Amino acid sequence: MEDNFTKLAYNVKAASKEMAVLTEELKNKALLNIAQGISANKEKIFEANKKDLEEAKTLVEQGEISQSTFNRLKLDENKMRDMVQGIQDIVKLDDPVGKILLKRELDEGLILTKKSCPIGVLGIIFEARPDVITQISALAIKSSNAVILKGGKESVNTNKMIMSVIQEALQKTEGFPENALVQVFTREDVAQMLKQDKYIDLIIPRGGNKLVKFIKENTKIPVLGHADGICHIFVDETADIEKAKNIIIDAKTQYPSACNSVETVLVHNNFGKKEELIQALVDAEIEIIFAPDDWHKEYGEKKLSFKYVNSLEEAIEHINEYSSGHTESIITENKNNAKIFMNKIDSAGVYHNVSTRFADGFRYGFGAEVGISTNKTHARGPVGLDGLTIYKYTIEGNGQIVKDYAEGIKQFHHKDLG
Amino acid sequence: MEDNFTKLAYNVKAASKEMAVLTEELKNKALLNIAQGISANKEKIFEANKKDLEEAKTLVEQGEISQSTFNRLKLDENKMRDMVQGIQDIVKLDDPVGKILLKRELDEGLILTKKSCPIGVLGIIFEARPDVITQISALAIKSSNAVILKGGKESVNTNKMIMSVIQEALQKTEGFPENALVQVFTREDVAQMLKQDKYIDLIIPRGGNKLVKFIKENTKIPVLGHADGICHIFVDETADIEKAKNIIIDAKTQYPSACNSVETVLVHNNFGKKEELIQALVDAEIEIIFAPDDWHKEYGEKKLSFKYVNSLEEAIEHINEYSSGHTESIITENKNNAKIFMNKIDSAGVYHNVSTRFADGFRYGFGAEVGISTNKTHARGPVGLDGLTIYKYTIEGNGQIVKDYAEGIKQFHHKDLG
Repeated sequence: MEDNFTKLAYNVKAASKEMAVLTEELKNKALLNIAQGISANKEKIFEANKKDLEEAKTLVEQGEISQSTFNRLKLDENKMRDMVQGIQDIVKLDDPVGKILLKRELDEGLILTKKSCPIGVLGIIFEARPDVITQISALAIKSSNAVILKGGKESVNTNKMIMSVIQEALQKTEGFPENALVQVFTREDVAQMLKQDKYIDLIIPRGGNKLVKFIKENTKIPVLGHADGICHIFVDETADIEKAKNIIIDAKTQYPSACNSVETVLVHNNFGKKEELIQALVDAEIEIIFAPDDWHKEYGEKKLSFKYVNSLEEAIEHINEYSSGHTESIITENKNNAKIFMNKIDSAGVYHNVSTRFADGFRYGFGAEVGISTNKTHARGPVGLDGLTIYKYTIEGNGQIVKDYAEGIKQFHHKDLG
Repeated sequence: MEDNFTKLAYNVKAASKEMAVLTEELKNKALLNIAQGISANKEKIFEANKKDLEEAKTLVEQGEISQSTFNRLKLDENKMRDMVQGIQDIVKLDDPVGKILLKRELDEGLILTKKSCPIGVLGIIFEARPDVITQISALAIKSSNAVILKGGKESVNTNKMIMSVIQEALQKTEGFPENALVQVFTREDVAQMLKQDKYIDLIIPRGGNKLVKFIKENTKIPVLGHADGICHIFVDETADIEKAKNIIIDAKTQYPSACNSVETVLVHNNFGKKEELIQALVDAEIEIIFAPDDWHKEYGEKKLSFKYVNSLEEAIEHINEYSSGHTESIITENKNNAKIFMNKIDSAGVYHNVSTRFADGFRYGFGAEVGISTNKTHARGPVGLDGLTIYKYTIEGNGQIVKDYAEGIKQFHHKDLG
């Protein structure tokens, strides 16, 4: 088993070197072939999905999976259209590979270039939603990365069918490397995947807290994503009551299970309209928990933790201690306080007078979203296609050696070009 | 012990939030105070260094440490001048924090800004060379990061003395936070450090392969650096013999123990001047190993592995299999082959007709070097000050909520500003 997986990972790594040199044209052709294949085979995909749904129905009855997991599993005409549209949208995005990030003449005839390139091999582990396969495959192809995908066991029939449609489309795309997209299926495969730090360069988990935490704790491969989304809103002394009400209600009720929903509201003790604010939240059917057991709580429903604080500094300290580093917002009419908050809060997103729900790659205008990262290195916040690239340095010369520079025979002049 | 270290790490994390908001002026003042302090206290530092050297002499005699470790330990007037100059050079560099990387109007009055910020807390583990302390402390201060430093046990007296001079200089700098630079001393401290993924954001090891490998295998914190430096040179069919000779001799002999020295030379079977090339290497006192036991071998002395290959493709495959992803060079007059090599080789540096020894932050014109990374995420190749930063997103608004956009009442227009 272990040797089989290592061989598979080795082959995907080899394919990744071929992926790295594909032209934008060929990549877009592959994507359009996939979009067409999904459309043409939608009945087969619905059929496979029906099988998964039947099996899942029993699991729901037995309490093994939740109704919301069941709902996310279901593909319908709308979701299918979104899948196809999603691939077509990625075709339209700029190629993130081959961008010149720096061009510098180190000395005459000695040219340093820093150019974006794919990371290599991505390992994607996702749950329930089978539409993730087409989205993540399209993002991987556009960024010239190879990918090993592992979907949830609930959607195994749907995933297999979609993947066979994708493979057929790629085979039709002349020049597209074999083994660049591979699907695996078992728990044991996940365990093997997390060990392949020689061949897999980045793991992207798409799923609940538990999945992400498990992955982060069990691999040495860099993981892009976030486990918790414990977002805060601080209502300052000078907050506008209407803004405060609207923003908190939006951040809690517009999509309560989203990672960028607010979980804790801190209110300045000197804020004059405390009662009006609380009444508005109650009217919006939000349950307010004063003095919760755990300030790290992510409710995922219309509940929030609530606390009065005596100062901006106390709010900042509370947030830096309990936040998951995702997104926080201050409601204030005091611009200086907003500035201090935005500088001192150490989270991927720090907002002034807007809802935390804006933390999203599409809302930021990235055109696609790989995921939202709470990491402090590589990529932070909503991650677009660029997050799937790194860079390499090339030097073009005509025989230069370091000895000449070390001995002072030649000097670097470091002129940036273009 | 464990609780003590966690408390220390917590305090450094708290100090990192203060570091994040320091002005460039204050940071430069702190750096100049340190430079002045080192100059003013050089006799005390020499004295502490003498103590270390005496103890180390015994260790050399007992075969516990090598002569070269001993040499790196020794501070003299030249090294002291370089230390001070190094700090002054960092003062002159642009502040890497607070750079606007993107400014976008999402909708009227809704402004997204992506701004560079410090990573947070760095953990630096280094061996022997005590001059690393001032360099890494200066880089951390300039990039607004807090840092926990652990030096080699051989230089403990020198490290303590330098650190006390640094602390005195920082105390003199009004407004500089306490606990932002902390030194620890024991092996047990290192073990504790590697566990603090809650408080330490990035580990930077500065030392030999063994140290770096040990660290990478024993922490979940991201590690910036490289273990091996197995660099390759491929002499293509159409290589210019003079360039081939000069470049290989430079890459092997100019500083044989450097990580960017060449370890393996691959030569195209159709290259017409094989004997002349080999003779030149022998004349330069380079030992040539045909058919080594292990193509992963990093010699660190005037030895190299040598192999004939039948094609450019074979060379690329060999390199992608055995390279450590540091730096490789092709010697060829065929521009198309150079292009293929540079595209398909998956290393941080890929060169054409130049020595691998150019892989260096100062030679690249970065003004400072944090280290050389063979990672595929965050920072790759020689890493300058920018590698110690990440970014955060801020949004400034006046009450906007997501519901309005989800329901089509408002639309994003995504206009890039400035």
